[in-house]
Amino acid sequence: MVDARAMAIDSAALDRYVTSCRGGFESSLAHLVSIPTISMDPARSGDVRRGAQAAAELLRSFGARADVLETDGNPVIFGRFETDSKHPTLTVYNHMDVQPADEPEWQRPPFELRIEGDRYYGRGATDDKGPALSALYGAKFAIDSDVPINVNFLWELEEEIGSPNLEKLLHKRKRELKTDSVVVSDTIWISRQRPALSAGLRGLQGATLRLQTSERDVHSGLTGGAARNPVGELAAVITELYDARTGRVKIPGFHKDVVPPSRAELASFKRSGFSIASFKKAHGLRSLRFREPSKVMRAIWAEPTLEVHGLSGGYHGPGIKTVIPPYAEAKLSMRLVPDQDPAKVFLLLKSYVKKLNPDVEVRPESSLAPFRGIVTGPLADSARQAVRFGFGREPAFVREGGSIGAVVTLQKTLRCPVLFIGLSLPEHGYHAPNEFFDWGQAHGGMKTFARYFELVSSRRN
Amino acid sequence: MVDARAMAIDSAALDRYVTSCRGGFESSLAHLVSIPTISMDPARSGDVRRGAQAAAELLRSFGARADVLETDGNPVIFGRFETDSKHPTLTVYNHMDVQPADEPEWQRPPFELRIEGDRYYGRGATDDKGPALSALYGAKFAIDSDVPINVNFLWELEEEIGSPNLEKLLHKRKRELKTDSVVVSDTIWISRQRPALSAGLRGLQGATLRLQTSERDVHSGLTGGAARNPVGELAAVITELYDARTGRVKIPGFHKDVVPPSRAELASFKRSGFSIASFKKAHGLRSLRFREPSKVMRAIWAEPTLEVHGLSGGYHGPGIKTVIPPYAEAKLSMRLVPDQDPAKVFLLLKSYVKKLNPDVEVRPESSLAPFRGIVTGPLADSARQAVRFGFGREPAFVREGGSIGAVVTLQKTLRCPVLFIGLSLPEHGYHAPNEFFDWGQAHGGMKTFARYFELVSSRRN
Repeated sequence: MVDARAMAIDSAALDRYVTSCRGGFESSLAHLVSIPTISMDPARSGDVRRGAQAAAELLRSFGARADVLETDGNPVIFGRFETDSKHPTLTVYNHMDVQPADEPEWQRPPFELRIEGDRYYGRGATDDKGPALSALYGAKFAIDSDVPINVNFLWELEEEIGSPNLEKLLHKRKRELKTDSVVVSDTIWISRQRPALSAGLRGLQGATLRLQTSERDVHSGLTGGAARNPVGELAAVITELYDARTGRVKIPGFHKDVVPPSRAELASFKRSGFSIASFKKAHGLRSLRFREPSKVMRAIWAEPTLEVHGLSGGYHGPGIKTVIPPYAEAKLSMRLVPDQDPAKVFLLLKSYVKKLNPDVEVRPESSLAPFRGIVTGPLADSARQAVRFGFGREPAFVREGGSIGAVVTLQKTLRCPVLFIGLSLPEHGYHAPNEFFDWGQAHGGMKTFARYFELVSSRRN
Repeated sequence: MVDARAMAIDSAALDRYVTSCRGGFESSLAHLVSIPTISMDPARSGDVRRGAQAAAELLRSFGARADVLETDGNPVIFGRFETDSKHPTLTVYNHMDVQPADEPEWQRPPFELRIEGDRYYGRGATDDKGPALSALYGAKFAIDSDVPINVNFLWELEEEIGSPNLEKLLHKRKRELKTDSVVVSDTIWISRQRPALSAGLRGLQGATLRLQTSERDVHSGLTGGAARNPVGELAAVITELYDARTGRVKIPGFHKDVVPPSRAELASFKRSGFSIASFKKAHGLRSLRFREPSKVMRAIWAEPTLEVHGLSGGYHGPGIKTVIPPYAEAKLSMRLVPDQDPAKVFLLLKSYVKKLNPDVEVRPESSLAPFRGIVTGPLADSARQAVRFGFGREPAFVREGGSIGAVVTLQKTLRCPVLFIGLSLPEHGYHAPNEFFDWGQAHGGMKTFARYFELVSSRRN
């Protein structure tokens, strides 16, 4: 184990380097932000390709090798600082595609970087171009300081649409992309005061429930009382599946494989800086299922859920149309936590629904395994130590309630540990109008990554 | 009480009259059907007025007085055979407006009467122009046979849109429209083998339930578990309001004022010719809540209901969008039976919903009192006897599951008994493509009405 005294990186030199980088960082970020790499919009595919070329050129301008790898969809940028093939390889994952920016709330054009003091406004500034650039600057310093490590960059252009082509690419090029570990920089701290490292992501299993009881709308006067009502019957099924007031899932066996958060994790949640008021404000929630922060954190990070996203069928216009509709369809998804298995959970749902109402058809929708992050061992210790070095604060390990398709894919196909070092803050506004990144996070991020590369180079996983 | 021997009407003469009327009936029906009096379509208001004039002229051609009474909407045709102001007055209610006829299944132009054997195809043939004309022919014979009665005709042109202007008109002209009883001819038998007289109509109370829990769609990963789900919570409320499998309403006090059908009514239901197979086929229902015909009849005619017509809010497109929506809205209505009071029932609903979930807003929608028909006494006996005379079969008193706004209005403003003598059959296809009426029902109807006027003229209510 290498301790601080044995660092190859000169801390004062790193500070000087980061300070001197600010102008270059800002012009590089401005260039990346100026290209509207909106993966969701087919009309932007030319911009997406232009963004890929610009990113590859940027990597090359830093002295890295860079290729634009084709997929059946948008390409992936693969960069590499190679020091020696005998050295360990660490892969940094970021994405260069962005959300659309049509919101009327944008105060300036979203694809022209606007610098206000320490803030960098523009679509993609924090999600995920700013963090990608910060990691690149950190890597450059580590490489120039002769840290014995090879650093790969995987910059995706389909993260915002669920990474539909990543798995195939990784599988095809797994030899070339071989790595000892991956660090993903696309996550959000709980607050600026408390750096957060992700200790896990929830998985997902979607399902559609459909019930048809007649051939067409029927009259609720002429037939009502005897005619079955598919909306009412599906509402009853949903109510048997979960308690909407508490969120408690009532499917027998559903919780069997849930690994409860460890005492250390729960303690880490407490240190995360989570606040109910900020959470409600950030998401526009009027009230929550729980009043205790510990319950809320556990519910969004460490517990599985079942939610209904909509109940289709019947009349949805103004007023009341007194029909009994022929069919209804409920759209559900379950967020899953380690060690729940999506396929197994789907079968539990299906057999319970069939028991509740045999006429309901149950169809599976998209599926994603939960991801269990690493919170102990050399890599986790390195991440913790690097963040403490970069930001002067002890990070908390928290889980993410959402699901990032790429992460499970990376772990599965590259068969190596995946860690998270995110640099974004809640106020930066992922997917929101007037998204921004800031120099404080870029500055700390460069230092964090430089140090992380050094620490990882000298530790075994 | 007048018995058959004391009849003023000569039975053989009536038979000859009805037979001789066929040609005139068919050409009058063809003329009425040729005018597309679609009250629902503002573009047809010229046709509606033309229909009113044609109907008034028809009445005059029979020797009746006829006026077209203006309202804020479509006019009402008021006709009168006056024998002597000292004689009792009976009012026949029919309507001259029709449903649209856009269905691609029409095999011939819907507004050209097509005669095929005994059948008269065309929009409005059975709903309600054919029955109106049959009653008029019956009245003409009674008047010409010196039956001591005045017969009024109220032919509405807004029945298919809920009679929005009828109450105001009746109220304004109540002296002129004064009558001793009303007979409505706009109902359907259960089968050709069994004449049916309506013994009641269900009322209606609509309601909208709305729950808002956030300002916008939120992410079911980032917030799911702690964020409230308005679709799930409303589904739970609906499930507490009624058992969708059995239809049983669970609102406390809801059934308190329900008058159960009498033993005589239940016996009459049994004789009605109702068949589950025909009912399912007629409405395109795959299965019912009950297998026993007696339970089905009771459920659609004599029991109140609560149904959900749609649950809005959330995602309704293809696949699954994993959002938790900001609000949801359930559209409900309750069919009510005597002696339930719509306003009282709404309050019961509202206070129960508030108890179940205080954040749910409950708004009243359209409201209609249940109608309790007359099944005993001189008028009911006359109707029964007249139908037996006209069709050679004993009629059954059944209730109607639907609600006809005009009926409650007639009873309330004219303050007199309202009875039903319908002539339509299920196969005639109310509101359906290829609607038809038939000579058998017209023939029996003319005889029934002639006899009914005679019986009523000599009986006290």
